[in-house]
Amino acid sequence: METHAGSANMQPDQTKTIVMSQTVSAAVLIIGNEILSGRTQDVNLNHLATTLGGWGIQVREARVIPDVEAVIIDNVNDCRQRFDYVFTTGGIGPTHDDITAVCIAAAFQVPVIQHPEIEQRIRQRPAPDDVMASRLLMARVPEGAQLIDNPTGGPQGFAMENVYVMAGIPMVMQGMLSTLQGKLKSGAVVRSRTIRAYLGESQIAGRLGEIQAQYNSLDLGSYPFFRDDRYGTALVIRGTDPDTMEAAAQAVMDAVRDAGEQPEDLGVAE
Amino acid sequence: METHAGSANMQPDQTKTIVMSQTVSAAVLIIGNEILSGRTQDVNLNHLATTLGGWGIQVREARVIPDVEAVIIDNVNDCRQRFDYVFTTGGIGPTHDDITAVCIAAAFQVPVIQHPEIEQRIRQRPAPDDVMASRLLMARVPEGAQLIDNPTGGPQGFAMENVYVMAGIPMVMQGMLSTLQGKLKSGAVVRSRTIRAYLGESQIAGRLGEIQAQYNSLDLGSYPFFRDDRYGTALVIRGTDPDTMEAAAQAVMDAVRDAGEQPEDLGVAE
Repeated sequence: METHAGSANMQPDQTKTIVMSQTVSAAVLIIGNEILSGRTQDVNLNHLATTLGGWGIQVREARVIPDVEAVIIDNVNDCRQRFDYVFTTGGIGPTHDDITAVCIAAAFQVPVIQHPEIEQRIRQRPAPDDVMASRLLMARVPEGAQLIDNPTGGPQGFAMENVYVMAGIPMVMQGMLSTLQGKLKSGAVVRSRTIRAYLGESQIAGRLGEIQAQYNSLDLGSYPFFRDDRYGTALVIRGTDPDTMEAAAQAVMDAVRDAGEQPEDLGVAE
Repeated sequence: METHAGSANMQPDQTKTIVMSQTVSAAVLIIGNEILSGRTQDVNLNHLATTLGGWGIQVREARVIPDVEAVIIDNVNDCRQRFDYVFTTGGIGPTHDDITAVCIAAAFQVPVIQHPEIEQRIRQRPAPDDVMASRLLMARVPEGAQLIDNPTGGPQGFAMENVYVMAGIPMVMQGMLSTLQGKLKSGAVVRSRTIRAYLGESQIAGRLGEIQAQYNSLDLGSYPFFRDDRYGTALVIRGTDPDTMEAAAQAVMDAVRDAGEQPEDLGVAE
């Protein structure tokens, strides 16, 4: 169970306070048979993880699920209770397999409405009656939803409480997400410091485990790579406090030197 | 709930039978903070989906989960009961964050052992005692596990009942997976027939919905694309029966012609 931002760090004697938890969590639901069949390589999770991470929202879990109503409803209801935010991609187009809006409404037990602002945008581009009828399916949202603007000009996405529903096409999803910047709760931003060493993981595993145990507010990862005909390991320190991260980085670099190699410090990135 | 292959289509009066269900299902668990932080773009799901699909095993759900023991255990136990197979990637290296083997053992409530065959492979390459101690962590498997060979020469993966545990590095995962060909239960292979049309989705959505309703053993998908400065839609028919697929493909191509465009038949692929 994740900590919800609304309650963390709230002091009972503060009558007015900026509520900011240390951790604001998110789950990502990638909706679409085409990802599970292998037809399409998902790239939305990676974009969501890096963008939300930069805003102080940590993606803690992602699920790729099929275009099946009961599965979508169950996953939305499970995730919206366990995480501060849920971001979905896919299934908001005009065809029979675009069932996300209907499923979100069912998850929240509210009716589906045709949203007048989305309808207005759709009707700006004329079309024969049958084509317009299909396009207007993209105006369906659960009653009470807020719109997410779509800078690419197409129909908007929507948010229902803490569930943000966006398109599956990466360019459209990225556009929609960009409009949310500054509008979401945020926690501390997790940054990462990477140190590269031409060592096998096993040559530094023991020391790395000791450093992880010493700095338990940080997350130390170890990722093998192959570059310039040599095997090496990227040692990644993730955390929110710069001083602690610096101390751990020095300890990691000492461990690399003690193993007989020169550490290469790639510095801090979000 | 997915149908389990072991019981489907089994006739009580058959004393010897080849058990083959129509559908053999799989879940994929991608284990690793580096995917959820956005540091690494996952490519393993796509490879698993296409490879297993070609073997008659359909990936029905995928989850990306962090290196957190309780989360891994819960997801393994949930998925191994709901799907015929579970394939995991990641977390079987020699460092402190490689906890998959321990978690699988906990999920099955069996002890962790040091597997003699993996140990033998690891000891073929000499190393100082402390480095060897770290490398031997890769010999940990749950008691009763079967090994999955590793053609890249490193430590093996393992299978515990219907849970197949593989490396996270794509080249190593792909090598391990290749050794399973022909050794898993399989159902009917789902093939896909793609028809491309320079139409917007809405221009064909109505007819496509009718065709989907008529051929409910098939899965019809509609995926917009942008190519040669034109927008179009890829219409994908997925199914197991060639005659039904052919009939649906003809209906889709008629619908494209009726909308005033020439369909481009890309044919059948697995």
